[in-house]
Amino acid sequence: MIVVMNSNCTDKEVEGVLERLRELNFRSHLSRGTERTVIGVLGEVYPELQDELEVLSGVAEVVRVSKPYKLVGREFKKEDTLVRVGGLPIGGGQTMVMAGPCSVESEEQIMSTAFAVKGGGATVLRGGAFKPRTSPHAFRGLGIDGLKMLDQAKAATGLPVITEIMDVRDLDIVAQYADILQVGARNMQNFSLLDEVGKPGKPVLLKRGMSNTIQEWLLAAEYILAQGNNQVILCERGVRTFEPATRFTFDVNAIPLVKRLSHLPVVGDPSHGTGKWYLVEPVALASVAAGADGLLIEVHPSPDHALSDGAQSLTFENFNKLMGRLSLIAEAVGRPLLTADNQRSPVGA
Amino acid sequence: MIVVMNSNCTDKEVEGVLERLRELNFRSHLSRGTERTVIGVLGEVYPELQDELEVLSGVAEVVRVSKPYKLVGREFKKEDTLVRVGGLPIGGGQTMVMAGPCSVESEEQIMSTAFAVKGGGATVLRGGAFKPRTSPHAFRGLGIDGLKMLDQAKAATGLPVITEIMDVRDLDIVAQYADILQVGARNMQNFSLLDEVGKPGKPVLLKRGMSNTIQEWLLAAEYILAQGNNQVILCERGVRTFEPATRFTFDVNAIPLVKRLSHLPVVGDPSHGTGKWYLVEPVALASVAAGADGLLIEVHPSPDHALSDGAQSLTFENFNKLMGRLSLIAEAVGRPLLTADNQRSPVGA
Amino acid sequence: MIVVMNSNCTDKEVEGVLERLRELNFRSHLSRGTERTVIGVLGEVYPELQDELEVLSGVAEVVRVSKPYKLVGREFKKEDTLVRVGGLPIGGGQTMVMAGPCSVESEEQIMSTAFAVKGGGATVLRGGAFKPRTSPHAFRGLGIDGLKMLDQAKAATGLPVITEIMDVRDLDIVAQYADILQVGARNMQNFSLLDEVGKPGKPVLLKRGMSNTIQEWLLAAEYILAQGNNQVILCERGVRTFEPATRFTFDVNAIPLVKRLSHLPVVGDPSHGTGKWYLVEPVALASVAAGADGLLIEVHPSPDHALSDGAQSLTFENFNKLMGRLSLIAEAVGRPLLTADNQRSPVGA
Amino acid sequence: MIVVMNSNCTDKEVEGVLERLRELNFRSHLSRGTERTVIGVLGEVYPELQDELEVLSGVAEVVRVSKPYKLVGREFKKEDTLVRVGGLPIGGGQTMVMAGPCSVESEEQIMSTAFAVKGGGATVLRGGAFKPRTSPHAFRGLGIDGLKMLDQAKAATGLPVITEIMDVRDLDIVAQYADILQVGARNMQNFSLLDEVGKPGKPVLLKRGMSNTIQEWLLAAEYILAQGNNQVILCERGVRTFEPATRFTFDVNAIPLVKRLSHLPVVGDPSHGTGKWYLVEPVALASVAAGADGLLIEVHPSPDHALSDGAQSLTFENFNKLMGRLSLIAEAVGRPLLTADNQRSPVGA
Repeated sequence: MIVVMNSNCTDKEVEGVLERLRELNFRSHLSRGTERTVIGVLGEVYPELQDELEVLSGVAEVVRVSKPYKLVGREFKKEDTLVRVGGLPIGGGQTMVMAGPCSVESEEQIMSTAFAVKGGGATVLRGGAFKPRTSPHAFRGLGIDGLKMLDQAKAATGLPVITEIMDVRDLDIVAQYADILQVGARNMQNFSLLDEVGKPGKPVLLKRGMSNTIQEWLLAAEYILAQGNNQVILCERGVRTFEPATRFTFDVNAIPLVKRLSHLPVVGDPSHGTGKWYLVEPVALASVAAGADGLLIEVHPSPDHALSDGAQSLTFENFNKLMGRLSLIAEAVGRPLLTADNQRSPVGA
Repeated sequence: MIVVMNSNCTDKEVEGVLERLRELNFRSHLSRGTERTVIGVLGEVYPELQDELEVLSGVAEVVRVSKPYKLVGREFKKEDTLVRVGGLPIGGGQTMVMAGPCSVESEEQIMSTAFAVKGGGATVLRGGAFKPRTSPHAFRGLGIDGLKMLDQAKAATGLPVITEIMDVRDLDIVAQYADILQVGARNMQNFSLLDEVGKPGKPVLLKRGMSNTIQEWLLAAEYILAQGNNQVILCERGVRTFEPATRFTFDVNAIPLVKRLSHLPVVGDPSHGTGKWYLVEPVALASVAAGADGLLIEVHPSPDHALSDGAQSLTFENFNKLMGRLSLIAEAVGRPLLTADNQRSPVGA
Repeated sequence: MIVVMNSNCTDKEVEGVLERLRELNFRSHLSRGTERTVIGVLGEVYPELQDELEVLSGVAEVVRVSKPYKLVGREFKKEDTLVRVGGLPIGGGQTMVMAGPCSVESEEQIMSTAFAVKGGGATVLRGGAFKPRTSPHAFRGLGIDGLKMLDQAKAATGLPVITEIMDVRDLDIVAQYADILQVGARNMQNFSLLDEVGKPGKPVLLKRGMSNTIQEWLLAAEYILAQGNNQVILCERGVRTFEPATRFTFDVNAIPLVKRLSHLPVVGDPSHGTGKWYLVEPVALASVAAGADGLLIEVHPSPDHALSDGAQSLTFENFNKLMGRLSLIAEAVGRPLLTADNQRSPVGA
Repeated sequence: MIVVMNSNCTDKEVEGVLERLRELNFRSHLSRGTERTVIGVLGEVYPELQDELEVLSGVAEVVRVSKPYKLVGREFKKEDTLVRVGGLPIGGGQTMVMAGPCSVESEEQIMSTAFAVKGGGATVLRGGAFKPRTSPHAFRGLGIDGLKMLDQAKAATGLPVITEIMDVRDLDIVAQYADILQVGARNMQNFSLLDEVGKPGKPVLLKRGMSNTIQEWLLAAEYILAQGNNQVILCERGVRTFEPATRFTFDVNAIPLVKRLSHLPVVGDPSHGTGKWYLVEPVALASVAAGADGLLIEVHPSPDHALSDGAQSLTFENFNKLMGRLSLIAEAVGRPLLTADNQRSPVGA
């Protein structure tokens, strides 16, 4: 961080800044030019420090030079991090597809979907048991019964399972069933949850908050890595903008930018990122063309009858079509689809 | 909710929609015009239903007519709700000011600030013991020690206390000390917390999420009222936009609009809503001119040395200046400042 | 502007930056610290220069220190600029109200409105003759006939007139009739128009673009001042955000911030800034409480029958109510309403 | 459009709405349900009509059913429109690349770039002679001299030329040199320019405004088609959001959505859409994967020395790399690159 002083600042003001930095345990480096005095701040800075220094007397501007995150950054670790899910690698040069319904609704629904997405080429099964809903009057998931149904589908198909954790009090039970713990967009800055979610040692998929910057997203991942768990997958799922024609605006720029800033794998969620089933395929292809390591896609046996997010879910038929086209794109960018052949045998088999 | 069918829809498609509504336990009303067929949906709808119906075959558009919330709406309850805080009413035609530091940092800091804001005319003391921070490396509050310091300041000044609750697991301890439980912007859609926070029966101040719509905000309040607690204060604190010159964009439109849509009291937080101490006073005055029932303002004995949010905190002197000007505005709009004279004697006195 | 070099930059890279600055005719100041090398850029910088320097080899970051605008800034001119409209001052410590219909629709409509807003206390008459419309199929104004009707209303009431200029080719004719030339939000970055609009020497009211930053807005004003005309009024009229419940989000923060950054007068337009007639009064009061020098308000004899913007127009009765309350707020902030008594006699009288 | 009345509306209010519709020359269809009365509006509606009806007494909500645009819509014309540029088709199932510098800076610069992009596989040369700049102090283009240099590059390479038109007064001269007239983002709602730009009968490339909705963009195109010119190319170039890490947020969702709503060809501009040269390739690939008919890309012989937009320009080498990868993606989606072989011989040859 660099503190730029006003051109007419006094010696006392300069000394005030230096003293404040000492109080906060930062080292500093003073550089007096003919027109400007500039103070470099050395040590592990955080975003709020900028505001805290800007308020000091004589300060014109405070500029960050080093990134506020550390463990998630490329500077800290150059090579890509591989996240291992049920024996499969994500982030290692192949394209992984996770698919399934928004919510687990019944044994029949999750079982048929699990076989369908496996048949289409998915290697992880998604399904929500605890659902965040904007209204207390909407369907909020089957809870533990849903987790058990996911487990049956996993046993039958061999697909590892990703499901959302919403409440720290549910962590033990969810971690018992999930192969990947998903932190949803609305909880990206639920710091109590972030402090805990990495502790069971399972991989964590961290969705970007709908109006969080890329830097805030990386800092949220930093919370998890700071607990000693670096098995984190980042998921772009669209941001909130003024455009009403789509549910969110999928930020495709974020994919290559995060790959450049961080060593963690990045996946795209075109289902939430568009909110319309007919936009899911083109935006899925775009995500992988832009560099995503995988996708998270909503599939439902009968989207018209889904209890949540039906409008953005693919039928089995449309999922198969998508996978055919995705395969061509994945080859074209040199990151072929991760296939069922690499997959370990069913749990308990 | 109204389902508008395509102009060329078939009878089978119309029947499909009607059947789906029966499955979901809604009643319906069919109206066939010469150019358009329209189906009215009767019952307690929720926002996601719109998406769920739009995906059905033959549907052109789905339109909400009634609001998705109920208990928080003016249609449900016409007269303003009074929230009682330590014997004082908020929402009853007077302007209430809650003030204090962002974080409790020391006994001396909170005690001096409590006396200063009381002297200036505040009737509630704010102070954070558990702080949400974007980075795991920043100061995260004193925790229970902070709550105890708030309690001492309350005992000494008689000011009731508002403090933030971030984690459901802390609810019992925080509710023991707080007169108002604050739900922060980043937790506005932490539905697990919303389900619990109303249960201790204390008033809840619900901040608007930095990128949540007014409707989502009212639905979040609906979670709390659905638990049987209608002592909810809504707090506008700025939304995220493209403008980089201020920390957030204070949505002054939201104040009169929410007063029209809901019976709950609304306060403004110009400290977070601007992020700059020199904008706090004009935006505080604007909030009250626009109809706010009160304000939440950050005050610190030495903003240059604050461990959080110093850039937006007022000195004691600037707080006093603000209160002088606010008093004139509050008179001009016919909602005079709620003063210390109405205040009950110190707890334990 | 300050160029911060990478910690491991080479001498050749430093020399490359210095050479590039020489090519662009900037002076520079080199400061080598133990950890960072920093280059100060001296001269009249512009925002795009930041991008142009960031791309150079070895550069970590480029930071602006001085503002990119000059003539509009407080540093260039400390005291408030008075803009004179038909003999009346705006920006001189009184609150000026400009009111009238969105579009001039008929002689009867503009005449009755002119008398009504004068009676209510407005001192400038607004009315559009050339209207920007999102669709080519909507009403686009009466053109020159509209200008003539405005002129009749001015002659009859003595109120000076503000009207929009959309096309440089119309500048002569519009300047002939207008006392203030209005540049609309959609034309805020129509640089061809900005280059010309100041030339007739009339005051210019420059609306902020619906998604332009405060800095871009000040730079657009800089175009006009650069032509030698400093009679510019800035108008905040709401920005585009994710919130669908209001037409725009009125950026009340911008009012005190622009007053701090610039010496030009600032007015608020609560009609466009909210899009709902029932929010116009509270946001008008908020604007003045926040420091606005005046207001621009839409009034129509029969908003239900307006050919444009009826939803946000006040009836004569509601305008009178607003003026009554505004008068109290204007007194409370020490900038009383500019009244008709100060007004010069009708043109030609 | 459908007008939904309040549940307790009176007969007089219903009659008021019907009468207002008659005044505005719309036909209507009244449908009285047991719970709701609904009025259908028939005729060519426009977006502002919604606001105009919502203000009427007794109206609960006004809903659009048909799209506000007509000529640009798929309902009006089912098959894709082919735009012909110098004998080459855009929108006909092949991927067209337009490339060149942001600004024409010198004969040498434009000539070398023209040969380089032709060699890489571009079939149209881009280059700005009149440049919109946020500050009056920045480089604003070579004007007519720039047009002449473009013409020389065209004669030498045979590449047709696209260049920006900013001012209606320059239309004749720009149309004389340009094969495609480009309307920039800041002029997307400069309705005076839109009214004229189609008249010379040249193809027009219409960039989306940085904060304009997809619907507003299509309505802007409607202005041009309404002049009898349907040779319009739409260009997505990023929208303004809260994310500061990229210059704009490229709205990849918009590409497949606009292809679905309209018959016009759509291209992506990843240079402006990201603002960083290292994001141009991935976002270019994503655009084509998502369905774009082509790309507009900035290339400069020496981006470090560009007079504008250097930070987002590709070197010749990086452009060649991009074209190699693009070719694979274009094949994978079945819309192969349009190559120089299809290109007609140089003008005048």
